[in-house]
Amino acid sequence: MNRKLRMGMVGGGRGAFIGAVHRMAANLDGKIELVAGCFSSDPEKSKLSGEDLFLSPDRVYANFDEMAEKEAARPLGDRIDFVSIVARNDLHYKVAKKFLENGIHVVCEKPLALSKAQGEDLQNVVEKSGLVFALTHNYTGYPMVKEARALVKQGKLGKILKIVAEYPQGYGIVSYEEAAAGDGKISNWRMDPSISGISNCIGDIGTHAENLAQYISGLKLESVAADLNTFIPGRELDDDGSMLCRYEGGARGVLFASQISTGEENGLNIRIYGTKASIEWHQEHPNELIVKYAEKPREIWRRGNSYNGEAAAKYTRLPFGHPEAFIEAFANIYLAASEAISDSIAGNFKGNEAYDFPTVKDGVEGMAFIEAAVKSSQNNGAWTNL
Amino acid sequence: MNRKLRMGMVGGGRGAFIGAVHRMAANLDGKIELVAGCFSSDPEKSKLSGEDLFLSPDRVYANFDEMAEKEAARPLGDRIDFVSIVARNDLHYKVAKKFLENGIHVVCEKPLALSKAQGEDLQNVVEKSGLVFALTHNYTGYPMVKEARALVKQGKLGKILKIVAEYPQGYGIVSYEEAAAGDGKISNWRMDPSISGISNCIGDIGTHAENLAQYISGLKLESVAADLNTFIPGRELDDDGSMLCRYEGGARGVLFASQISTGEENGLNIRIYGTKASIEWHQEHPNELIVKYAEKPREIWRRGNSYNGEAAAKYTRLPFGHPEAFIEAFANIYLAASEAISDSIAGNFKGNEAYDFPTVKDGVEGMAFIEAAVKSSQNNGAWTNL
Amino acid sequence: MNRKLRMGMVGGGRGAFIGAVHRMAANLDGKIELVAGCFSSDPEKSKLSGEDLFLSPDRVYANFDEMAEKEAARPLGDRIDFVSIVARNDLHYKVAKKFLENGIHVVCEKPLALSKAQGEDLQNVVEKSGLVFALTHNYTGYPMVKEARALVKQGKLGKILKIVAEYPQGYGIVSYEEAAAGDGKISNWRMDPSISGISNCIGDIGTHAENLAQYISGLKLESVAADLNTFIPGRELDDDGSMLCRYEGGARGVLFASQISTGEENGLNIRIYGTKASIEWHQEHPNELIVKYAEKPREIWRRGNSYNGEAAAKYTRLPFGHPEAFIEAFANIYLAASEAISDSIAGNFKGNEAYDFPTVKDGVEGMAFIEAAVKSSQNNGAWTNL
Amino acid sequence: MNRKLRMGMVGGGRGAFIGAVHRMAANLDGKIELVAGCFSSDPEKSKLSGEDLFLSPDRVYANFDEMAEKEAARPLGDRIDFVSIVARNDLHYKVAKKFLENGIHVVCEKPLALSKAQGEDLQNVVEKSGLVFALTHNYTGYPMVKEARALVKQGKLGKILKIVAEYPQGYGIVSYEEAAAGDGKISNWRMDPSISGISNCIGDIGTHAENLAQYISGLKLESVAADLNTFIPGRELDDDGSMLCRYEGGARGVLFASQISTGEENGLNIRIYGTKASIEWHQEHPNELIVKYAEKPREIWRRGNSYNGEAAAKYTRLPFGHPEAFIEAFANIYLAASEAISDSIAGNFKGNEAYDFPTVKDGVEGMAFIEAAVKSSQNNGAWTNL
Repeated sequence: MNRKLRMGMVGGGRGAFIGAVHRMAANLDGKIELVAGCFSSDPEKSKLSGEDLFLSPDRVYANFDEMAEKEAARPLGDRIDFVSIVARNDLHYKVAKKFLENGIHVVCEKPLALSKAQGEDLQNVVEKSGLVFALTHNYTGYPMVKEARALVKQGKLGKILKIVAEYPQGYGIVSYEEAAAGDGKISNWRMDPSISGISNCIGDIGTHAENLAQYISGLKLESVAADLNTFIPGRELDDDGSMLCRYEGGARGVLFASQISTGEENGLNIRIYGTKASIEWHQEHPNELIVKYAEKPREIWRRGNSYNGEAAAKYTRLPFGHPEAFIEAFANIYLAASEAISDSIAGNFKGNEAYDFPTVKDGVEGMAFIEAAVKSSQNNGAWTNL
Repeated sequence: MNRKLRMGMVGGGRGAFIGAVHRMAANLDGKIELVAGCFSSDPEKSKLSGEDLFLSPDRVYANFDEMAEKEAARPLGDRIDFVSIVARNDLHYKVAKKFLENGIHVVCEKPLALSKAQGEDLQNVVEKSGLVFALTHNYTGYPMVKEARALVKQGKLGKILKIVAEYPQGYGIVSYEEAAAGDGKISNWRMDPSISGISNCIGDIGTHAENLAQYISGLKLESVAADLNTFIPGRELDDDGSMLCRYEGGARGVLFASQISTGEENGLNIRIYGTKASIEWHQEHPNELIVKYAEKPREIWRRGNSYNGEAAAKYTRLPFGHPEAFIEAFANIYLAASEAISDSIAGNFKGNEAYDFPTVKDGVEGMAFIEAAVKSSQNNGAWTNL
Repeated sequence: MNRKLRMGMVGGGRGAFIGAVHRMAANLDGKIELVAGCFSSDPEKSKLSGEDLFLSPDRVYANFDEMAEKEAARPLGDRIDFVSIVARNDLHYKVAKKFLENGIHVVCEKPLALSKAQGEDLQNVVEKSGLVFALTHNYTGYPMVKEARALVKQGKLGKILKIVAEYPQGYGIVSYEEAAAGDGKISNWRMDPSISGISNCIGDIGTHAENLAQYISGLKLESVAADLNTFIPGRELDDDGSMLCRYEGGARGVLFASQISTGEENGLNIRIYGTKASIEWHQEHPNELIVKYAEKPREIWRRGNSYNGEAAAKYTRLPFGHPEAFIEAFANIYLAASEAISDSIAGNFKGNEAYDFPTVKDGVEGMAFIEAAVKSSQNNGAWTNL
Repeated sequence: MNRKLRMGMVGGGRGAFIGAVHRMAANLDGKIELVAGCFSSDPEKSKLSGEDLFLSPDRVYANFDEMAEKEAARPLGDRIDFVSIVARNDLHYKVAKKFLENGIHVVCEKPLALSKAQGEDLQNVVEKSGLVFALTHNYTGYPMVKEARALVKQGKLGKILKIVAEYPQGYGIVSYEEAAAGDGKISNWRMDPSISGISNCIGDIGTHAENLAQYISGLKLESVAADLNTFIPGRELDDDGSMLCRYEGGARGVLFASQISTGEENGLNIRIYGTKASIEWHQEHPNELIVKYAEKPREIWRRGNSYNGEAAAKYTRLPFGHPEAFIEAFANIYLAASEAISDSIAGNFKGNEAYDFPTVKDGVEGMAFIEAAVKSSQNNGAWTNL
């Protein structure tokens, strides 16, 4: 490409956390420019957000339908090359479908949809469209996660026997204390089923653990026996959940996620145990990958070293010891998606599965995971297939 | 006491790991002397072990029945004050009963027995005897575990919502590789049901996690939904297991134990999440207790400091920064049991529950835990009460 | 500002590490656009680099003098608002002076100059110009470094007694092995005195440790007793050095830097000990600040929490647990410099000292530090004032 | 030996920390029994301490001269085989000499003496006596310290270039605050030159760092350039000190020790950098040894594994993951000394240098180190040979 890719954004107006993250991720490498957006369902807020971002007023839209149609009507190279969808969860499906149907590539914040059925519908749309669709399961963007996956693929772990995936957060506990103090209000839109669907905690963060486990291990999660909990009074959806897991090929495991684990910040951690070696990775210290053996010293594999594999090296920007973190990992999804979009523009698109970003299939698997976990929990923990 | 306590030992002959640990634990503080023993079911091996330990030949016995009777026949102050039972698992019940019936206090290696019924029978014997009975769930001997328990008792954690207890080990994987290489033999007596009872991994180490969780949290474990696994070909008992847990008062949790987690050494770890604060402790770094809050910096509480509570301080030998570890924690069980035995000799015994050592009740709870876990797993993970 | 700031760049052509870092740092927040550059002393390489960066060919210059003059001739709002200098060390002084003399603000990679005299000359130029001059001592951009400085300022540490600042790297050891193998060539321009001046290791990374110590502690480093070493055969400059330090007010300390500490990556670490509390920070785990007390539990202060102070909060982009790292810290220097440049454009510039970025004064202090260390070492470790 | 070794003790009466540590270390393995002692210069306190320890009253002495003579007069096998000297620093020399002259083996707490001259005199006495003399530089008793030494000996580190040895403690700061509050009294006998000699901090703990560095690296420390400090008002001796170091063969380094490093506990840490690999060890996490390479993953070598070398394995009591700590390391000095004493009794003594315990030579080196450091500091940091 002899120009920057042109990005539009739906959602992410003033004050929205995840929109700002997507923009930083897209900005980082200087290969994408934001040129259009519909930043809020409130047209005035959308307009002001557009000004904040130095956009031309005629590229700031009042609704996403108008945006998709008007942008699609502009000539290629002038119109947006892709849209980044960072709107509320319940809109992901609708917005994505609209842009795909207008021939515009999509980078979409997770969750893919509010149900597996919706997700499968979108999968059909994506497959028919021949367009790029990247889902920002951002944690798989970390170089040492890619390194872990590579070690598994190379057989360094032998046969995988056990997977422990966990994602404790504690931010919800503040609401617990508030609820206990008397108001009991739903202070967080994530707890509203009309926006979040059938699950809050498992849907919001449990899916990251699930996606990470499958990404690294290469094993499909086949069934779960779950116990979801709602600790914060007055809420309709889960704020905590644990489950036993069975993976293809006989591996077993545990997966838990929580928003009421006081003092935990963003504790996405994973341990994968194989017959020859095991790996351990912590999102809060992402530049290190611990590798353990039965009868050899433990190893700490660190990002940016000459011994890192291809996938990790390709998505590394800095030399060893100069830490990379969350935004860089997020930007790696944009980097991989940009590669696919550029290929598409050049007429060389190899299909979404050929690039190193999460796809609509990951999104559908996430939906299946949520539905299985909720069903199992409602069914007193019975083993439930995805 | 103006003399050392006199200890006898059953089991722990040449080459036995746990017997050596008990002797070091008993030796450490210079208040106990080993004076008699029946170290093996093989009389020659017992004799040689007695020589190794500089015992008088007439106090080295060929079988434990003889030992119990002959020692009991000696005058108080000359005979053993208590017996330390470190024989094979299947003998704990029989040996303990014999010595108790002969009026001799007992320190017993876990497990208490091979079944809950056996355990309850022994509980009756202990209660009727009015004697000291300490079970070496040694991990509760660590000062920072006692500190954790004290913080819970003082209400520092608020209401407990979640408990994650884990105990991964990896030593079994060597057998996996051997079995895969063709012999498939049972290389470890722990895998023999006639010695270990109905469970290996959950029985051997899962119970430590269960005991630790209940000791610190003060909450009874009420029911479990378990998935036990046998990964090593040719074995009859579990070498790995995970379960969902429900505690009294509504706390939920996860507990897993494993012997095939390659490269893990002795990873007994616990995290307890409360509404006001949470704690985290790792057996392999036992001098630290991590305390987490929602809106305050994390704290690292360290052993030997002036801010430590009474229970931790009482069972601490060294100043801060001079690490204590496994043997010292083990010795704390002996220290607490010695206090009870000395009280008993002085006519002031306050009952086993009044001291800070694990009792026959802990042992019975452990048996109930094992039986519930095995039953749940056999019943496809159905929730099963302890 | 209702537009992005316009940045030019001198140096940083294809393959240059630090230029790419500066561009990512400038890109991150979407408030700066690169519009002009002279990327190499080789005009062809400069041109190709400009194409890589999607620049208009007429804004890609063959030499920096021309660039300064032609840009200065453009109207404000069209011309570059500031230049980022990432050329070789020996050019920093000359390039900076040229742009300042043409009325263009400067962000300059360290070192400021090749000598203290040069640095002082540049300080005069900056002061007379009334322009913004930011030096990228990037490690002071980390939020938890700012938090540490705030704790010191608030008196939380009491009187500071001791400072241990260290910066071990190991990348040079590869050259050691190569040199030992026979070629002994200078494989690294950093070892060439005509480019690096009188010191390599102390100049390149020792100054970061020095700057960090002074930034956090608020104490001037008064004198040093140094031992600089050249371990790699065939080299003219130091690749390792240690020194004793005396700070104003009586604090003492140790500072060392090394490029031959095998296996270290980028180990900039600092410990500052006060009478009431102490702090410890590690660049490779930058989101945590350890605070230690005499008789209270240690604390781990973590980025992004409500208890963080103003300075840390202002330079934080992500919630707790979502780690930030090197590029974000670097971008904080650009953010602070941008604030000053925008203020200057708006006629409200408050002087370089009023913003939170390293200034020309930090650069002059760095030069004084290097000269004192080299002189002390040449003088057999005699205490030498800065 | 078909009996326990018989130990006497000088010093270590009620309330003395280090005496209790020596007794636990001697007790641990069940191969040594305490049978005699002179626990205090106050005969009543000595008597009561003897009762606490269940000693026969006729083996509790009022002064050490009497003890040495009376014990020597008893027949071998009945008299003490060796004496453990844990009296105040100024008595070590005199007591050791007395017992050696009476033909009794010695285990002596450090420091060896109050001056290098005294130390050399004692060295002569030891060498003439043909007796066992072990100095409890206990930190070299840790298995992973022995492992580190073995790695160096095997050449795994290549040529050693740099050594960073540090020993920050913070306990003294409480006195600082007290002194600042007005009394300024010498609250600690360690600050009294008549007891401690010419140095407090460097003598008490700096020597541990020095001994550890020489033990692991196998390199003699040749000269130092030191800066010793007395931060606590009203004190005569140093409570902090840092120095640059030069080792034989060209290795350089830094060594510092401190008692006013607020919040540090017992931070003896060492890093040794070689051309092929480097090692790092922390006393507060003693079961791990970090090994770093230029272009391979870092390794964590852990105690108790099959890959551990002979020396580490010989002084290990527990399997991997069951942590050992301070007392066990201390007991290893007793274990090694016991081996030498038993050999001596059996007529097979191989000379003190043939066993793995610190000798009188280590003690003399420590004295030389203290004197060089003090002299250098008094001489404004001039390089001073040991």
